[in-house]
Amino acid sequence: MKTFNVVGKNIKRNDALEKATGKAMFSTDMNIPGMLYAKVLRSPHAHALIKSIDTSIAEKIPGVKAIATWENTPRELFNTSATMTFTVPSMEPVLDQYIFDKVVRYVGDEVAAVAAVSEKVAAEALKHIKVEYELLPAVFDPLEAMKPEAPIIHECPAGKNIPAEIVKFGMGDIEKGFAESDVIFEDMFTLPIQKQAQLETQAALAQVGSDGSITVWSTTQTPHPSRMILSKIFATPQSKIRVLNPPYVGGGFGVRIGLSAKAEPIAVALSKLTGKPVKIVYTREEDFTSSDTRHGGYVWVKLGCKKDGTFQAMELKSALNAGAYCSFSGETPGVLGAMGLAVYRMEHMSYYGHSVYTNFTPSGAMRGFGNPQAMFAIEAAVDTLAERIGMDPLELRLKNIIQVGDKWCLPYACGSTGLAECIQKAAKAIGWERRGTLNEPGSKILRGIGMGVGTHCSNAWPFCVDYDNAIITVQQDGSMLLAVGVPDIGTGTSTTLPQLAAETIGVEMDQVNMTFADTLTTPFDIGSHASRTLYAAGTAVVAAGNDVRKQILEYAADVMKIALERLDITKGIIHISGYNEAEACEGSGICQSGEESMTHISVKELVYHAHLRNKQFIGIGRTTPPNSPPWHAHFYEVEVDTETGMVKVVKVAAAHDVGKAVNPMIVEGQIEGGVLMGVGYATSEEIKINAKGKPLHTSYHKYLLPTAMDAPEIQAIIVESNDPSGPYGAKGVGECGMVLSAAAIGNAVYNATGIRFNEIPLTPERVYKKLQENKK
Amino acid sequence: MKTFNVVGKNIKRNDALEKATGKAMFSTDMNIPGMLYAKVLRSPHAHALIKSIDTSIAEKIPGVKAIATWENTPRELFNTSATMTFTVPSMEPVLDQYIFDKVVRYVGDEVAAVAAVSEKVAAEALKHIKVEYELLPAVFDPLEAMKPEAPIIHECPAGKNIPAEIVKFGMGDIEKGFAESDVIFEDMFTLPIQKQAQLETQAALAQVGSDGSITVWSTTQTPHPSRMILSKIFATPQSKIRVLNPPYVGGGFGVRIGLSAKAEPIAVALSKLTGKPVKIVYTREEDFTSSDTRHGGYVWVKLGCKKDGTFQAMELKSALNAGAYCSFSGETPGVLGAMGLAVYRMEHMSYYGHSVYTNFTPSGAMRGFGNPQAMFAIEAAVDTLAERIGMDPLELRLKNIIQVGDKWCLPYACGSTGLAECIQKAAKAIGWERRGTLNEPGSKILRGIGMGVGTHCSNAWPFCVDYDNAIITVQQDGSMLLAVGVPDIGTGTSTTLPQLAAETIGVEMDQVNMTFADTLTTPFDIGSHASRTLYAAGTAVVAAGNDVRKQILEYAADVMKIALERLDITKGIIHISGYNEAEACEGSGICQSGEESMTHISVKELVYHAHLRNKQFIGIGRTTPPNSPPWHAHFYEVEVDTETGMVKVVKVAAAHDVGKAVNPMIVEGQIEGGVLMGVGYATSEEIKINAKGKPLHTSYHKYLLPTAMDAPEIQAIIVESNDPSGPYGAKGVGECGMVLSAAAIGNAVYNATGIRFNEIPLTPERVYKKLQENKK
Repeated sequence: MKTFNVVGKNIKRNDALEKATGKAMFSTDMNIPGMLYAKVLRSPHAHALIKSIDTSIAEKIPGVKAIATWENTPRELFNTSATMTFTVPSMEPVLDQYIFDKVVRYVGDEVAAVAAVSEKVAAEALKHIKVEYELLPAVFDPLEAMKPEAPIIHECPAGKNIPAEIVKFGMGDIEKGFAESDVIFEDMFTLPIQKQAQLETQAALAQVGSDGSITVWSTTQTPHPSRMILSKIFATPQSKIRVLNPPYVGGGFGVRIGLSAKAEPIAVALSKLTGKPVKIVYTREEDFTSSDTRHGGYVWVKLGCKKDGTFQAMELKSALNAGAYCSFSGETPGVLGAMGLAVYRMEHMSYYGHSVYTNFTPSGAMRGFGNPQAMFAIEAAVDTLAERIGMDPLELRLKNIIQVGDKWCLPYACGSTGLAECIQKAAKAIGWERRGTLNEPGSKILRGIGMGVGTHCSNAWPFCVDYDNAIITVQQDGSMLLAVGVPDIGTGTSTTLPQLAAETIGVEMDQVNMTFADTLTTPFDIGSHASRTLYAAGTAVVAAGNDVRKQILEYAADVMKIALERLDITKGIIHISGYNEAEACEGSGICQSGEESMTHISVKELVYHAHLRNKQFIGIGRTTPPNSPPWHAHFYEVEVDTETGMVKVVKVAAAHDVGKAVNPMIVEGQIEGGVLMGVGYATSEEIKINAKGKPLHTSYHKYLLPTAMDAPEIQAIIVESNDPSGPYGAKGVGECGMVLSAAAIGNAVYNATGIRFNEIPLTPERVYKKLQENKK
Repeated sequence: MKTFNVVGKNIKRNDALEKATGKAMFSTDMNIPGMLYAKVLRSPHAHALIKSIDTSIAEKIPGVKAIATWENTPRELFNTSATMTFTVPSMEPVLDQYIFDKVVRYVGDEVAAVAAVSEKVAAEALKHIKVEYELLPAVFDPLEAMKPEAPIIHECPAGKNIPAEIVKFGMGDIEKGFAESDVIFEDMFTLPIQKQAQLETQAALAQVGSDGSITVWSTTQTPHPSRMILSKIFATPQSKIRVLNPPYVGGGFGVRIGLSAKAEPIAVALSKLTGKPVKIVYTREEDFTSSDTRHGGYVWVKLGCKKDGTFQAMELKSALNAGAYCSFSGETPGVLGAMGLAVYRMEHMSYYGHSVYTNFTPSGAMRGFGNPQAMFAIEAAVDTLAERIGMDPLELRLKNIIQVGDKWCLPYACGSTGLAECIQKAAKAIGWERRGTLNEPGSKILRGIGMGVGTHCSNAWPFCVDYDNAIITVQQDGSMLLAVGVPDIGTGTSTTLPQLAAETIGVEMDQVNMTFADTLTTPFDIGSHASRTLYAAGTAVVAAGNDVRKQILEYAADVMKIALERLDITKGIIHISGYNEAEACEGSGICQSGEESMTHISVKELVYHAHLRNKQFIGIGRTTPPNSPPWHAHFYEVEVDTETGMVKVVKVAAAHDVGKAVNPMIVEGQIEGGVLMGVGYATSEEIKINAKGKPLHTSYHKYLLPTAMDAPEIQAIIVESNDPSGPYGAKGVGECGMVLSAAAIGNAVYNATGIRFNEIPLTPERVYKKLQENKK
């Protein structure tokens, strides 16, 4: 087996020092001379017509430079999500948003924005803008919103308040499958609205040049797609717009795939009105009320198996709460179905799903993108069937999980699966054999262990437009600059992508530096999301690295007068393959070995030799990366306090087939973070609204994120299946830690209490109530 | 003849609006939060040892953040000029500078620098730095400096105070040539020190990241070479350094090929000491005293011809005043000789030249780079020979000028010459036939007409390392971004390079935008100098444009199902060659023509079609452009006031063979600007020193630049020889307007007065004195 010099090593993160010392620059920190500050006036109503806006008094406040409303900003429809960019040729994107519209559709919707010399002045001005509203009926539940009597939020060709096409797919004949089943489980599950709650709120700083050029520093996860949207809104050629991170982004989790809510267009619109740079930083409350959430809603599952446990048929349905604007509500039901149907092998499967507009904060992308919703339902079904046929749920899963070569419903190959290994290793780690022996009769605390298995994607292709570019420019001193259009949203890709480059070329890690995502410095890239960054952008990086390596070796063969195929590069030294004195001459340039001709030369020396002959090595990688499923098995041990209803997750074993861990420390961090986010999803996180549609959980104080105190012991287990399609065998991992928490915690709570909860989060109130009902 | 859509048109400059409205950003305007301001303590002595520096009092001044001296900054030798980068493989660069040294070698040399919260505080702190000097003997004249008794300024292997190798070349046998000559002219000419006096003084803003990365906005003409120098000084990999213009540069004229004097390293050193961004902007006085000048010194010429005017032999020698540090003093004597020997055809030629260190401000590159010095001498020789053999000097030149195919001494082909056409057209424009009839006896004002002819280069190759890269990235809306590593130092290349791209691809001018020079956005480029930008970077732009065009047409052929060779692109529409309805469907995308299949499609539509299929067109041009001589003939009409000695240039006809004028308006601007700079060189500009070496002409008030009031009527005549090597036939023009003014004005003054001045500038004092002497 090939040994690696850089890949697979726990290399210290390139962003560690700057982040630990507080010197890392985020959009929120940006500051340019003459800059103005923006504040947004937001709708207090869930659904209303704007009859009039009077800004005359606000405009007169000293320090107020401009007030933007629907009357003085572009009337161009768009979608804050990158759905417009990602569109596959056969699908029309849903464009249902203006910067400001004459109708407000949720509490928090944008009405106007002020640019002023300070945030304080801007906030003061907001109070003096007079808006006359005509209230319209509102609807908040997706099932209600589809009814004939429900108010129309947007006119929709697909059905009443259904924003995008209904997703339908499957294989076989489910009627036949269920008819052949011995046992069938069928139920509906209810999912909450979760918030990404990333540390840095939505923010942007826009500067419009006198030549009409636009520069935007922002928190976007996708500079290039973000630019496409801005180009449409402001009718400006893309080549005159630059979107970049400055360079850091304080978390993403899907909340800014495309625009950072409306931070970018509001900042640009105000910069155009004032001729000054304008910065907008969402407050935490705004980030909660007016920035995409995870889709809540309903999932129905019907699963049938033979008495021996062989799965026969599955029917999966969903109706998700889109909120007031479409965002990714076309795509999310599709991924929910695709991931839900990809885990188990059976002949008959069908999916039917869509979103529904409501007068709620828009839902969009969030880590997992429908997959956690699907698995919460499916894994409950699997555990229930196991119980009914008297089979260990672990064995039932091992019997039915997809194997390489199985027919499945996804439009790309299942190139690898280490899921069985994941199940076995995680079961061992959690002590699966303890299950059933955990509780003593009459105990106040009930213990349980539950599991779940699943998959995800490593990329967005072929679900949408998807391609990556990487350029490695070898500088005249042999140092290398890797430019690739993906942000590092905190996931460590500014370390792992240079690792791939260094490994591929054959140099040390410190010989490669990386530029962050910036539309000016990199060709198109669809950005950081879909668990794709390492896998997909990495594919382009490896291609660029191979291009550089080839150029260097060809030039070296000529200079050294040695056949190309005899040459190799190790730790920055070009040498005859197998020649083992490379280290001895490291850094010393051209070396002679006795009577022999030149036996090795450092990359550094060779590169300068080439420079003096007018030559620079530039490697270019341009790929449309494929896709491949990562796999995961999660086991959770929980304690349910019967006196308070509190569910406490005490231990987690999370095994992930990531293909190959390019930087194991970073992979473990991704898994641990995902698990904790999943614990919150399963036990505490939810945005609820009052009767008028006003969100009630809009701060870190009110919205209950798990803290360090809530963190269970997490054992992250890496399984390496060496995927044939990924860079050095790697697959995605970013979202995967989040997919199974609700599913496995639901199963653990059932194991502890004997109660099946069809709705999360498993708050003390909800659990206590059910425990009390159960006693009766 | 092929007609062009964009090339050859007077397209409005892309920088016009921003510059005219004052919104264009220059380094001087840069401002980032937390920024400190630097001021430099400079030597009051021409040559001294620094015994001690006491900064203790200055450091205590509130607002002073750091004081840099030789004791706390890198002790790494460098050269502020790009000579280190440009080095040809066979030559060692001369590295003779530190940021601060223990010896000062001219009045204005750097001793220390302060970073403080304001320029005022920094300037106050300078007063409190106590420096103890031990004075050393100083020398200011290059001939004196070579004598054994002269002080050693730097130890030099090539000879006493001779910084670089002595340049010697030639062909034939000059002894034989002179022996066969009927008439021989021989004399020495004395040249002054001229200053570039560009509008924006040297400036830089440096920001050092906590990861050691360095960003420098500066006035450099050469971001990549500048970065190489900084990489050496600060032992930082080039890939961690970014050098860029912000984006404008307020003139160059050679003064910042490499570093902007020491603005960049001083700013970086202080940023490293303080952890803050540091800006330095040279005062006008500093720019005069401590920033490279044009080489003054001595040129000897010996020219022999037959009675019929056939040139037989030329011997050319030079000893130039290098000043205290080498800068481009290795290269300038070489170019002086190369250009001087390239104009006339003869069998026997030789050149011998070098620079000499003195305790003067360093000399470096300035528009013309030795060529004006050479031609002042040579053209005086030609006119004198013409007079001696009784031949019209115009006819003598026409008889002897180089023709395509002639043997010459330059290491690249003479691919085109329109010099004869230049001579004829300019002669006609000035009214050459009036010569000899201009003065009435006894007139107080003497009139004269003089001419000069010459050549220059269009690039730096093969004199040094030289290559260019251009990348054209087609954005998803069909707009295109051209990235090329050359600054626009005011010469209009941010308009003319996009013109080349648009013409080559077949789109309209407004479909191409350009990024300015920035080491992050572009691969290596040797920058803007050597009259090379349009010619050399243009060669890379055309190559990139052809690459894009090919990719678009290949994709279009596939989409349109039409053979590639039948397709063309005109004004942004891809169409069947010769199909003349392209305009009718412009912008409307795919068009059908009756029963025919698709006949045309806009680039915009095709590009989006490709994007939806994961494809982006990116054109890359990587060239080592050749070189080719531009040619020029200048005719000047002067008035010499015999009562005051004032020489007034009243009319100029300047004909230039530029190969092809890509933007005639810009070419004319270059010629006019060059002529006026030449008028200053010939008549008023000079930096003199007092006995202690202190420069006396260090402000716009004291240094006499020609103003608008001094500007003669200039007729710029464009001759197009369509050079086979240049983009669309273009050759260089940037420096050419400057090459012949002194030569032709010297000849015109002789024509007016009968007095041959062997020294410029022709100030009233100098002219009056000679007129008085002549009377005796």
